[in-house]
Amino acid sequence: MRVHIIGLGLIGGSLGLALRQARPSWEIVGCARRNETLKQAQEIGAIHWGTSIPAEGVANADLVIIATPVLAIPEVFAAIKGALRPGCIVTDTASTKAQVLDWATQYLPKEVEFVGGHPMAGKEQSGLQAAEADLFRDAVYVLCPSPNASARARGLVAEVAQAVGARPLVLDPAVHDRWVAAVSHLPFLLSEALIAAVAASPEWPQAQALAASGFRDVARLAAGDPRMYRDICLTNQEAIQEWLDTVLQYLARLREGVASGDGRLLEEAFRQAQQAREAWWRQSRFAPQKQQPEG
Amino acid sequence: MRVHIIGLGLIGGSLGLALRQARPSWEIVGCARRNETLKQAQEIGAIHWGTSIPAEGVANADLVIIATPVLAIPEVFAAIKGALRPGCIVTDTASTKAQVLDWATQYLPKEVEFVGGHPMAGKEQSGLQAAEADLFRDAVYVLCPSPNASARARGLVAEVAQAVGARPLVLDPAVHDRWVAAVSHLPFLLSEALIAAVAASPEWPQAQALAASGFRDVARLAAGDPRMYRDICLTNQEAIQEWLDTVLQYLARLREGVASGDGRLLEEAFRQAQQAREAWWRQSRFAPQKQQPEG
Repeated sequence: MRVHIIGLGLIGGSLGLALRQARPSWEIVGCARRNETLKQAQEIGAIHWGTSIPAEGVANADLVIIATPVLAIPEVFAAIKGALRPGCIVTDTASTKAQVLDWATQYLPKEVEFVGGHPMAGKEQSGLQAAEADLFRDAVYVLCPSPNASARARGLVAEVAQAVGARPLVLDPAVHDRWVAAVSHLPFLLSEALIAAVAASPEWPQAQALAASGFRDVARLAAGDPRMYRDICLTNQEAIQEWLDTVLQYLARLREGVASGDGRLLEEAFRQAQQAREAWWRQSRFAPQKQQPEG
Repeated sequence: MRVHIIGLGLIGGSLGLALRQARPSWEIVGCARRNETLKQAQEIGAIHWGTSIPAEGVANADLVIIATPVLAIPEVFAAIKGALRPGCIVTDTASTKAQVLDWATQYLPKEVEFVGGHPMAGKEQSGLQAAEADLFRDAVYVLCPSPNASARARGLVAEVAQAVGARPLVLDPAVHDRWVAAVSHLPFLLSEALIAAVAASPEWPQAQALAASGFRDVARLAAGDPRMYRDICLTNQEAIQEWLDTVLQYLARLREGVASGDGRLLEEAFRQAQQAREAWWRQSRFAPQKQQPEG
């Protein structure tokens, strides 16, 4: 089995590390623009060998994993489509899926099978230096097969997800995009808005000394890669707008509660949110009793 | 030295534990409504003995620390003011300070000195069972002395802050409230709005399975005590409104950027926020090179 990983950032690098460990017999080839990145990927054991030309050697690949920012995917499709052999399976790791599935239909030859993928894991650092083999452990790994994808193609991408320690979950691309806008893109935008709002204040250089762990956690996502999040916003516009509208309405209501001193409204709102957070937490993989289930 | 801690929740309990360790010769008395809480506080070593009557034994206190929710503070002042001996020093731990300083002037006898306090530490759990001696380690501990507070009074409350491992910082109460609205109350409201917005969706029971560490962190503060946050909003209305207005304007601008597909605006906004977050992080006590300075 030969796997080509195109894009060796946090996700591509971590997939390489995890697959090398879990499937030692697989040949892992990496593609990145900079030779420095390829060299580093080889040194840390994320790839067997690398190339800076996406199409190079791709004719021998059984599986191609595209781990670039979303908006670079059409270029990659265009660059490799002529070189892919019939029966090759292609997947990606982008945070939005409907647009990527459209591109796959538009760009890839019929003899190639596309199964979109999205491992729901990450951290605020980006780039290969942040890669780690355990990044996907216990994470949900969403699969969005294209309509023509065979059971073999679905099965192989699901195997990749399981091999890196994640739990595959098949979803419709539009449903994926709407849900991910809620649990990932909206939190990023709120995190970003927090830091943008406070840092614009002339008092911020002094005020920031008071920021403690609550601020740290809510502001963490704002450290994410600006280009990646730009691409996410541009490929998931409708769902993100809808969630932003919901949050803007809700915040405006809270603002009225604060302005009018409506303690009952505020306490009730906070209590409902506390309960919803508790319900989410209990069923999440972060709740103490569920940590490290190991099998 | 005898210290009365009135209110044995997360903050009062943690102060008791930390002071017992740092100042073994001090007598720590606790006051809580429920006998069960008093018993537990004694068992974990947070207090030497306890009472459910705020005024009981308070005549012998050198320092009274009020660690109740903000809006309970006037009642406590009213309950103890007749019993305090001249020269007694009173402090609190509430998250807002201007209102508390006003109440202190209004309720406390002139022979008593008030120095408002706010240890900038916490966690999403509340209550004595969440208390820990290390809660305040390396945290900023804001002091807001009332105009008549002597150097002795300021010094004693600063000593408490240092004894529990925190760094005292004297601030004007209005300045404190404005800054804390930015770094603590606004993050809470954004966290709360996130969970309220998504949990109201009929798809949430399924969608929540996709929530990963980013969602976990941004939503964490929403687990906080609803009554505490209600009190915070009711005693810091103006500053919270102003920050909410700033954030609402900013989010509306982002929403337009998403709706119009303005990649340049979005990327630039995200980059600025990333830089501001990085600048905050570097000077914070959370940055790796600054962890555990120990002295």
